[in-house]
Parts: sequence; structure tokens; C-alpha cells
Amino acid sequence: VVDPFDEERAAIERRLDEICAGCLPELGHTIGQTITYGLKSPGKRLRPLLLILGYRACGGEGDASRLSCSPEIIHSYSLMHDDLPCMDDDEFRRGRPTTHRVHGTRTTITAGVAMIPLAVKVARDASHEMQIPASVTTSIVQVLLAAAGAAGMIGGQLRDLAGEGQSLSLEERETIHAAKTAALIAASLKMGGLAALADPEVTDALDGFGRAIGLAFQIMDDVLDVTSTTTALGKTARKDEVLRKSTYPGLLGVDAARERALGLIHRGMERLAGRDLLTQELSQVANFMVTRTS
Amino acid sequence: VVDPFDEERAAIERRLDEICAGCLPELGHTIGQTITYGLKSPGKRLRPLLLILGYRACGGEGDASRLSCSPEIIHSYSLMHDDLPCMDDDEFRRGRPTTHRVHGTRTTITAGVAMIPLAVKVARDASHEMQIPASVTTSIVQVLLAAAGAAGMIGGQLRDLAGEGQSLSLEERETIHAAKTAALIAASLKMGGLAALADPEVTDALDGFGRAIGLAFQIMDDVLDVTSTTTALGKTARKDEVLRKSTYPGLLGVDAARERALGLIHRGMERLAGRDLLTQELSQVANFMVTRTS
Repeated sequence: VVDPFDEERAAIERRLDEICAGCLPELGHTIGQTITYGLKSPGKRLRPLLLILGYRACGGEGDASRLSCSPEIIHSYSLMHDDLPCMDDDEFRRGRPTTHRVHGTRTTITAGVAMIPLAVKVARDASHEMQIPASVTTSIVQVLLAAAGAAGMIGGQLRDLAGEGQSLSLEERETIHAAKTAALIAASLKMGGLAALADPEVTDALDGFGRAIGLAFQIMDDVLDVTSTTTALGKTARKDEVLRKSTYPGLLGVDAARERALGLIHRGMERLAGRDLLTQELSQVANFMVTRTS
Repeated sequence: VVDPFDEERAAIERRLDEICAGCLPELGHTIGQTITYGLKSPGKRLRPLLLILGYRACGGEGDASRLSCSPEIIHSYSLMHDDLPCMDDDEFRRGRPTTHRVHGTRTTITAGVAMIPLAVKVARDASHEMQIPASVTTSIVQVLLAAAGAAGMIGGQLRDLAGEGQSLSLEERETIHAAKTAALIAASLKMGGLAALADPEVTDALDGFGRAIGLAFQIMDDVLDVTSTTTALGKTARKDEVLRKSTYPGLLGVDAARERALGLIHRGMERLAGRDLLTQELSQVANFMVTRTS
């Protein structure tokens, strides 16, 4: 299968390499290597891709690849922390030993934290490079940090930790995922729209689309956890079951969970179409969210 | 002994209470309580105090107390993480059980990370309240994040972890402390200067003063670790020895270490005097850094 976005992904990887090369001399060996290991872990680069496609859908004609790495840095740090022995205690991620198994728990905690200001710096430098007005850069950084912060990803993570071993309602589960996963996906799209200097109604539509597909993505993650194998996933399968998390398949059954994901994708695309933003590229990614097998 | 800054400290505590009260409803019980426990741990509030005094020394006449909490949030998160079982494994801090002993390791890691975007939000909201121009607010946030980030506090922490059990030269030790402690102290002063719309030469002088007294503070921390007791410090004394860290008294002897701290304070004050910034308040705090007993 040919990846329709291989050019974009190659540009993203090059930019990530640049960022890592920039860290190493300044920060010393340990932190640079740890950040590089986490950031260059093979991944789908969904957030950078969505940022670039959101930028283009709003008429952006510059190169948003450097800016697109900013939410990926936040995403990578969150995976590094999720895998820690005192968190989910995972040994493999995307087919490789997790960061703390290679670089140690203490270094992984600290390097992960360092990635938040690093992501801000990358967003700011990239905005400057793209000659984005300072007030828009401020909004871009605010959107990024709100998605990462206590009201976003980190808050969702805490609620998730609090809910483990308890049975959660569908609504509670969705509140957690809205914060934990969908907020950063939506922020990536919105950052792309802001970088293209789109109006607030337009960036709101991108945000709504992002929240819908982000939740769908998470539902499919639960479904794949039940239906796939450790080899295909590149991480330990059936982990949710072991931790007794209330999963969507557990709450709804596999088929109804898949249906719910499809419905979300559909509504998300309608949201985009209402603002004339539903490019072929964005529908391809949205559809991938529910048809992926790993 | 009367605290010459009891009014400022009371204002800082009130602002910290406000910030904590603001977290609780939005973020749910767990994260709010954990952040509150860490942030409201009794402390000297040195960084907020220096921000306020730096602001005043530059002619600022508004209320900088809310802004001053921003570096304290970063400082508190760093203490919460330093105390973790996988870091320094400390059980007491300022006479109370450490945050992870009360709220658990996983919650403490995540709540600590959430405090970075929280500090940025507080800086931004406070700047808005003080009607500081947007471009200056951007600089304030940049100074804060640079001091917190991989080139600042977090980078220093990583180098410190890497150096444990090894013997370090005085120069290596100072590089670590410049990043780990002095950067945030200098940033607090510089943020105060920026908030008062001071010129770059002036904020540079505040920065230089901050780096000097920050290093002196750290040297005295090592000295107190050797000369004081667990009760007086409110944390486990002689911890450095147990971890075989290369300390200043170990490298120089207690008396020469104290001398070096005094010399730094002196040079820092000269730096301020050169720009007509050496207010009585700032010299009081600088002198406290080397005369404190806990």
C-alpha cells in the first residue's frame, strides 16, 4: 500500500531530526539521547500530519513541517511517561523497548518534563520562521499548552489514573479521552488553522473535527486492544483488560464501539464541510482513524 | 525576629490560595489537591519575593504578587519531582511528608508536569491584569520557560543525576547549579524587571545578580546540609553525603565554601549597584541568602 502522505511524513522526520540534533550539543549527551530516543520512536505522526493538512485546508502555502513537530513533542513525552514503571509499566512501545528501559526511569521522567518547554520553543521558532504575527504566535502557544496542561492531556491522564480498577460510565470514559487524547489532536488542527491566519469560526470547526476524530481514534484504540495481537500493535495487547480499565468494547461491545467511532468521524467531517474545509487529504486521514489495524 | 517582608509574603500566600482555588473545580479533586499540597507547602517564597523586589527596584508601582507566583509554581513542581522515590527518595520536605507520600507517586509525577503549563497561564493572566504589553508578556513567558526547560532547571537536574556517585570538579558542580537553581532565581528577578518595562541593560543586571545569589544560595544549602540537623532543616540532613554527591564543603571545606558564597553575593550586589538598582530590600534578601540557618 502506498502511503499518500509519504512526502509529508519524510519532511516531519527530517524536522524531528533537526530538533534532536539541536538538543544534543546544548544539553549534554544524556538528555539529548533520551529525548531523541522518545521522539524518534517510529510513529504514525498523526498530530503533525493533521497540523499540516489543517494549515493547507485553510489556504496556508508555506512550510508548516517544523511547527507540526511541536504537538508531536508533547505527544512523545506523554507516551514516555505513560510507559513508566509507576504508570502503565509497559516494556514495549511501537516494537521497541520503552524509553525508561533504555535510559532509566529518573532520566525519562526529567527528559519528558523538559519536552514541554522544548515544544513551546519549537512552536515559537517555527512561527518566527513562517513570519506569523506575534499575536498569532501567542495564540498558537496557548492552544498547545492548554491541550497539554491540566485542563487537557495531563488532566485526562490524572482522571484516567483515578478511574483505574473502578467501573466508569460511557460519559466518564469519554470525558477522560476528550482531555487525554482528543484535546491534543484538536489543538494540532487548530494550530494549523491559526498558522494560516484563519478566522475563529474556521479554527473552531477544525477544533470540533479534531475532537470528534480524536475520540474516534481512542475508541478504535480500545477496539484494537481487544481484537489485535501484541506483534501487530508493537506494544503489549490486552493491557487494558489487565488493568481493569473500563473500555469502550467492555461498555458497548466491539461492534457498537466501532459504530460509535464511525458516527463520530462522520459528524466531524460534516463539521468541516460546513466551513468548506473538507479537503480530500483530511477525509483520508479521518477514514484511516477507523480503518487502521494497528 | 520580625520578617521585613511579612506583607509581601502574606500577599504571595493569598495569591497562591487563589490559584489553588482556581484549579480545584476545573480539574477535579485529585489534581487540585495534589497541586495545592505541593504549592502550599510552607516555604521561604524566595523567588516570588525576588520578583516583587526586582519589579519595585525598576520603578514598578503595580501589584506584582500574582505574577510572582509563576516561578514559585515551577519551583514547587521541581521539589515534588526531586523527592520522588525514583529521584532523591525523600520522605520529608519542610517538616511535612513529601507530596508522593500523601498523594502517591503516579499522581505526583503527573500533577508536577501539569504545573508547567499552569505557571505559564498564571504569568499570562497576571501580565494581562497588570496591563503589560503583549510583546513584553511573551518575553516574560520565554524567560520563565527557558529557566525551567532543558537548558535551565531540568537540564541541571539531569546533569546532577548523571553526576551522582562520581566525583565532580568545582566547575562541573557550578555548571549544574547555575542551571538547576540559579537560572530560576535569575529568571524571577528578570521577570520583575520586564514587568516594570525596564531596559535590557537593566534586566541583564538583575539576571547577573540573580545568577550570583542563586549560586551562593546553593553553596549555603550544601554548607547547611553538613552543619545543620534534620529538625532545623525540615528535611533529611546529610542526604548529599549518603548519595555521595560532590558538595562544595567536600570540594572546598566548610569555611572556604562559605567565603565563596559571600564573594558571590558581593559581586552580585556590585552588579546591581552599577545600574542603580541596589535597593535596601534587595540587599536584605541577598544577605539573608548567606546568613540563613535553615
